[in-house]
Amino acid sequence: MTKSFATRLGDIQPFRVMELLARANALQAAGHQVIHMEVGEPDFSTPEPIIRAGERALHDGQTRYTPAQGIPALREAISRHYQDTQGVDVAPERIFVTAGGSGALLLCSALLLDPGQGLLMTDPGYPCNRHFLKAFSGEGQLVPVTASERYQLTPELIDRYWADNTRGVMLASPSNPTGAMLSSAEMAAIAETVRRRQGFLVADEIYHGLTYDEPAISALVSDPDAFVVNSFSKYFGMTGWRLGWLVVPDNAIRDVEKLAQNLFICPSSISQSAALAAFTAQAKEIMERQKEEFRQRRDFLAPALAELGVGVPLMPDGAFYVYGRLGDGLPDSETFCHRALEEQFVAVTPGTDFGFHEADRHVRFSYAQQLDLLEQGVERIAAAIRNQSGTAS
Amino acid sequence: MTKSFATRLGDIQPFRVMELLARANALQAAGHQVIHMEVGEPDFSTPEPIIRAGERALHDGQTRYTPAQGIPALREAISRHYQDTQGVDVAPERIFVTAGGSGALLLCSALLLDPGQGLLMTDPGYPCNRHFLKAFSGEGQLVPVTASERYQLTPELIDRYWADNTRGVMLASPSNPTGAMLSSAEMAAIAETVRRRQGFLVADEIYHGLTYDEPAISALVSDPDAFVVNSFSKYFGMTGWRLGWLVVPDNAIRDVEKLAQNLFICPSSISQSAALAAFTAQAKEIMERQKEEFRQRRDFLAPALAELGVGVPLMPDGAFYVYGRLGDGLPDSETFCHRALEEQFVAVTPGTDFGFHEADRHVRFSYAQQLDLLEQGVERIAAAIRNQSGTAS
Repeated sequence: MTKSFATRLGDIQPFRVMELLARANALQAAGHQVIHMEVGEPDFSTPEPIIRAGERALHDGQTRYTPAQGIPALREAISRHYQDTQGVDVAPERIFVTAGGSGALLLCSALLLDPGQGLLMTDPGYPCNRHFLKAFSGEGQLVPVTASERYQLTPELIDRYWADNTRGVMLASPSNPTGAMLSSAEMAAIAETVRRRQGFLVADEIYHGLTYDEPAISALVSDPDAFVVNSFSKYFGMTGWRLGWLVVPDNAIRDVEKLAQNLFICPSSISQSAALAAFTAQAKEIMERQKEEFRQRRDFLAPALAELGVGVPLMPDGAFYVYGRLGDGLPDSETFCHRALEEQFVAVTPGTDFGFHEADRHVRFSYAQQLDLLEQGVERIAAAIRNQSGTAS
Repeated sequence: MTKSFATRLGDIQPFRVMELLARANALQAAGHQVIHMEVGEPDFSTPEPIIRAGERALHDGQTRYTPAQGIPALREAISRHYQDTQGVDVAPERIFVTAGGSGALLLCSALLLDPGQGLLMTDPGYPCNRHFLKAFSGEGQLVPVTASERYQLTPELIDRYWADNTRGVMLASPSNPTGAMLSSAEMAAIAETVRRRQGFLVADEIYHGLTYDEPAISALVSDPDAFVVNSFSKYFGMTGWRLGWLVVPDNAIRDVEKLAQNLFICPSSISQSAALAAFTAQAKEIMERQKEEFRQRRDFLAPALAELGVGVPLMPDGAFYVYGRLGDGLPDSETFCHRALEEQFVAVTPGTDFGFHEADRHVRFSYAQQLDLLEQGVERIAAAIRNQSGTAS
């Protein structure tokens, strides 16, 4: 008789992109030049002022446990950041510093759902979001979305999909993999719908800062009681540091603090000290320059893919991805991505990493990559399309 | 109508020691000299070679995502560490680097239990262990232990308390708060009992390295299939870095990897690079010197408390705590600790932080504090005992 692990494991998928990355690295080690368009990580290094603040933290011995909620100076800086960028008051007491956006999502998942309850979320979407809920025996209740509702939830969709065990809604704006953003009016309408149903509103805002036409509006503007997940990984370029934050309403502070104490003890003291420099003018200048570069890449990549016959009905508002539809003569997305990597040495991620709805017809192309490499990547994608045309099963 | 949070929150207590610490710091800010004997953190800084390796990691731009399981070089170093210190083969593939021992406990909790299932564990014990299980809708099934079974589980206790929903046993050796260790024969007998019942064996070994009479024996020696939680926080002095590890059996690797990818993405890249230096001879020399100092403090504190009438039936084998019983004329432990802090400015932790069994009669005294301050602390504890004698309710 073998011992079996918890049943939740059956509902949690590995990241396909991780296996793709491992295979891409193996091909590279074997001497092939691989173009990486699968990654969910900025290609820029952490801005120098943040690195230097990290070095100072080490030199000054900032290597002890901090309060579970995070150091006060950083929570105050984040609070000011909301005032400056969104014009909303978020008291530092409502801000929890966490190990990446992941830590924030974990706290929300543990806080909000009893086993068997769920939150509505878009399909396609960031797969970990539903896996976090599943880890706590809850569920992500997937709502298929397409370009016609700009890949986001709407009040109508929320009303249509709300079930007896639904406790609320989880949004992502800008979204991974589509880069689609909610306008302030759309966000307000969703918040109102959720409020009417006494539900929780959770907003994943980890790509805030990386938007190319207009700034992203926080859910906190429409709903001061929203749970908001953010991260130092993307705009601030601190992926490996593992630092993010969670904003909670007043009535959740005490419970979230208990969870953070018990589940994490605290986030990294070094990363917290370093992140103080993320809000300086020097760091901001670097990050804004990088954002400008992301914009140029988007402006190149989206039309270039469209010219190859990849369906890109929506120019992405933010993040660093284009979510494109494969032409009709092409095989399913996993086959397409596998062959593109093995034959053309270009790594892109199949839609099946992001959900189920038409996932086998979509591919996520990341532009967290230098422009000259993106240009080569597009040539290779063109070759992959030529090679695989007419091989649809 | 108010929205309520998940019912699990009702079963998760805040860390009392955290509130105590906050109050102690407030008294200090108000000008009182407080003696800290409540802390669960070495008073030593991170050893210099590790700090320098962290600085190098920043300088070299080691600030990107790593594999979810941790960087290969660190997993290989941990594997060698098992060979060197325990004489057991642990393949690097079985080692997951995590954000502290906390990250490892979280992975175990998500992996092993369905809602409503539980693991047996000692009362008293580290409170987060049962809260981790509760967070995933499982439960810590508390087994009252006393000095007569050396504050540890035994095969008899396991057989007596094993219930229909019990899936295994969670040990801690050396234990927090008692410092009690399992001998190799005791560990083997427990492992055999758990194996006979097809249960999981989880061993919290985060205080390994800090043992003063003989070295701690890993559960992996008796049971190669044990889940073993360890940490860079205590012996290696890396609390604020948030780094630990989990050893899993071969048949769990794939599932634990899925969980780690989805719940954490990866542990801190900087901490991982720095921790490579934790296994150097230079770092080891520093850590062994600090261990020697902990031993001297233990050898002072345990008899000094006994002389004051605090019951210390067992000399702690390891960690940096003495778990003592209050004399009969004294009030309950929460009152005692509260008044000792407010009147004598000495911070010690009530037993109620560690469980229920005779918790109101016990106090945890930490010796993660300089010897001269411990001496002052003991004088203040003496005063607290004098002041509170005869006030038992």
